[in-house]
Amino acid sequence: KINSDRLWNTLHETCEWGAAHRYGEKPTDTGMARLTLNDDDARVRRWFGAEVQKLGCTLSVDQMGNMFARQPGRLNSAAPMIAMGSHLDTQPRGGRYDGILGIMAALEVLRTMKESGFQTNYDVGVVNWTNEEGARFPKSMCSSGVWAGAIPIQQAWDLRDIHDPSVTLRSELERHGYLGDIACSSDLATGYPLGAHFELHIEQGPILPENNRSIGVVRGAQSYRWLNMTVQGQDAHTGTTPLSARRDPLLASSRMIAASHDIAKRHDALASTGIIRVPSNASTNTISSQVTFTLDIRHPQDSVVHAVQDECLKAFEAIALQDGKGVSFDWTLDTDSPAVKFDDNCVASIQAAADQLVGREKSMLMTSGAGHDTVYTSQHCPSAMIFVPCRDGVSHHPTEYCSPQDCAMGTQALLEAVVHYDKF
Amino acid sequence: KINSDRLWNTLHETCEWGAAHRYGEKPTDTGMARLTLNDDDARVRRWFGAEVQKLGCTLSVDQMGNMFARQPGRLNSAAPMIAMGSHLDTQPRGGRYDGILGIMAALEVLRTMKESGFQTNYDVGVVNWTNEEGARFPKSMCSSGVWAGAIPIQQAWDLRDIHDPSVTLRSELERHGYLGDIACSSDLATGYPLGAHFELHIEQGPILPENNRSIGVVRGAQSYRWLNMTVQGQDAHTGTTPLSARRDPLLASSRMIAASHDIAKRHDALASTGIIRVPSNASTNTISSQVTFTLDIRHPQDSVVHAVQDECLKAFEAIALQDGKGVSFDWTLDTDSPAVKFDDNCVASIQAAADQLVGREKSMLMTSGAGHDTVYTSQHCPSAMIFVPCRDGVSHHPTEYCSPQDCAMGTQALLEAVVHYDKF
Ligand SMILES: NC(=O)NCCC(=O)O
Ligand SMILES: NC(=O)NCCC(=O)O
Repeated sequence: KINSDRLWNTLHETCEWGAAHRYGEKPTDTGMARLTLNDDDARVRRWFGAEVQKLGCTLSVDQMGNMFARQPGRLNSAAPMIAMGSHLDTQPRGGRYDGILGIMAALEVLRTMKESGFQTNYDVGVVNWTNEEGARFPKSMCSSGVWAGAIPIQQAWDLRDIHDPSVTLRSELERHGYLGDIACSSDLATGYPLGAHFELHIEQGPILPENNRSIGVVRGAQSYRWLNMTVQGQDAHTGTTPLSARRDPLLASSRMIAASHDIAKRHDALASTGIIRVPSNASTNTISSQVTFTLDIRHPQDSVVHAVQDECLKAFEAIALQDGKGVSFDWTLDTDSPAVKFDDNCVASIQAAADQLVGREKSMLMTSGAGHDTVYTSQHCPSAMIFVPCRDGVSHHPTEYCSPQDCAMGTQALLEAVVHYDKF
Repeated sequence: KINSDRLWNTLHETCEWGAAHRYGEKPTDTGMARLTLNDDDARVRRWFGAEVQKLGCTLSVDQMGNMFARQPGRLNSAAPMIAMGSHLDTQPRGGRYDGILGIMAALEVLRTMKESGFQTNYDVGVVNWTNEEGARFPKSMCSSGVWAGAIPIQQAWDLRDIHDPSVTLRSELERHGYLGDIACSSDLATGYPLGAHFELHIEQGPILPENNRSIGVVRGAQSYRWLNMTVQGQDAHTGTTPLSARRDPLLASSRMIAASHDIAKRHDALASTGIIRVPSNASTNTISSQVTFTLDIRHPQDSVVHAVQDECLKAFEAIALQDGKGVSFDWTLDTDSPAVKFDDNCVASIQAAADQLVGREKSMLMTSGAGHDTVYTSQHCPSAMIFVPCRDGVSHHPTEYCSPQDCAMGTQALLEAVVHYDKF
């Protein structure tokens, strides 16, 4: 049985690195700003590396800075390890649980096993995946994506800090000494293959709390695509240029954002814009020359995501012609994450753990709304996820919260799912 | 008769200070980025001060850095001078004529008078008004506004650089030595009163070219108000937060911008958004917590501007409740510039000049779409403006262009209007 207090304390102690956005009185009443490979991310990585080595694990780092900690099993088998993985990076205004809980839970599982002298049959271990959030370097699940062969490593290395284009992901890996020499790949000969991948994560949505369930047995993840739109118009004076003579990219972008939302709603999908930018020299009395904005489209089915995208682009074409002399637009695809179905045996192991811990009426099968590293690992090894509820479904926000009980319950489920799978 | 070549050369020579945004091959095929009190603005100010002194003018600088050059009249009267004024600052992506032409024309008028030994009855002179554009320090016609008593000087001094809040207008005046000691006021005892104010300016719109006229006799300026909106929502994950659970300030802002445009259109007014901002730590997969945007509403009648503003704010209230759990919003008034009717005698002087130069069929009475320093001077002295056409009505854009012929024609009209008014 895992140690709930140790788990809780370790999680919050290590959140000292990157704590930000205080919202209450208690020491832990802050969010996090531990962006991928910033100084605090490097600190927590060094701590994590030291901690798993203390437990007797061997630590390997690959060329994307993914950290693999491995604890030998009883059978001394050469088979790839059963991994528990997640991420230590956060959103710029993120919380203390998204990703972090998954790593701390995995560590707690290893600590519990060591303490109680329990040995698995096969090797087990923990993976800290680099740049899961895609917040600083704009590709989410970036390094599990490279590992899975879905993202070319050069493209990932070349990703630029979204606010400072002079910094690349690779330059930050080098700066902190996390450009390892193992290939970032599941290849048996050159990379770091995994036998299975289990991930504990907060749900980040309202479904578990609304259904009064404490464990989500996650059997897949919804599809999503990130588009980066650039709308081109022409600078003009706001006081002397008649509406009919304008090419106003901000007006067009506004209509596009509203339209994408309305289109997504009709399809029961999601479309969201997180970032919009006018040139830094914009002024109140000048129509901007150019506007860029992001578009994040999601639905459990790939076909619906594509339909929403197509309908949006068609609507955008009409909007581009609608006001004044019209604007032009262009777009690039930043992330493409198709829908994923997890492995039946992994899901069954989690279901078995959940049945035993909370029973069928307190757990539920579900599909993840967010992307996770497990989405990529599932392309190369049996994988599945455990969700625990977070307060009001709030995530990517400083007040994100998962109770000590739920953290512990999820960690216990992770332990038991891994043990169940190891036997199987 | 003014010297067209000298005018043209002086204008383009001094545009070396602040030239930016090249768009063509010719040396003068650039726009300007001579923001108020940046280093280039300081350079052109020093040049202007030296140049008018060479002509025998006395130079005075007030506490807003407004520069007054004065040439004595024949009568040695103590009456306030007849001023020709405009501004040397530009938009960040501005052109070579907006404001600059007015100053260069005024200088050419003084040069022509001196050269031909012509003396006015009363003192005449030139005023360079500080921060007309309001692009760097966000209050347009800022220092003529202080001079007119419409803007408290402390408020103007405290204006912050819109992109670097550590810099104020006053700190920049001090840095360049343009914090003069004369009160910025039309007060006879402490300030710098004017007997009249004439301003030559490019139209910045399409009315003159569309009507094939070469001189606009400007009898007033339309009303406008600048609102700064702040929309407050809550950070949330774009993949796991159902639309119904969101407070999305960027979606709301988009609907507001589109709505304001549609409302203005129904009133035959203008509503424009030049700047929109999400927090600098925004990310693609997080709904922003807060969005700010500017709103610039214009119409020849104050009552319509107010009606559009009221209708917009009412529409915004409905929009704020429309999606998910709703957002809240707040606003401040950055600029309030009511409609203005210029002085009948000044307008008549300009009309007389235009009649003589181009005839009635090539001139037209018109209302300015943009604010100008003359809007404020007209509150304290007889004032009016001359417009000349600019290519395609394009302004606040690097390719802004006024032909040598039109520059010269406007300058000749300025000279004759001043002489006409001086006689009268
Ligand atoms: N869990 C999570 O926030 N992942 C980031 C990728 C996404 O936006 O879904
Ligand atoms: N002429 C001019 O661009 N003035 C700035 C104030 C305005 O936006 O109308």
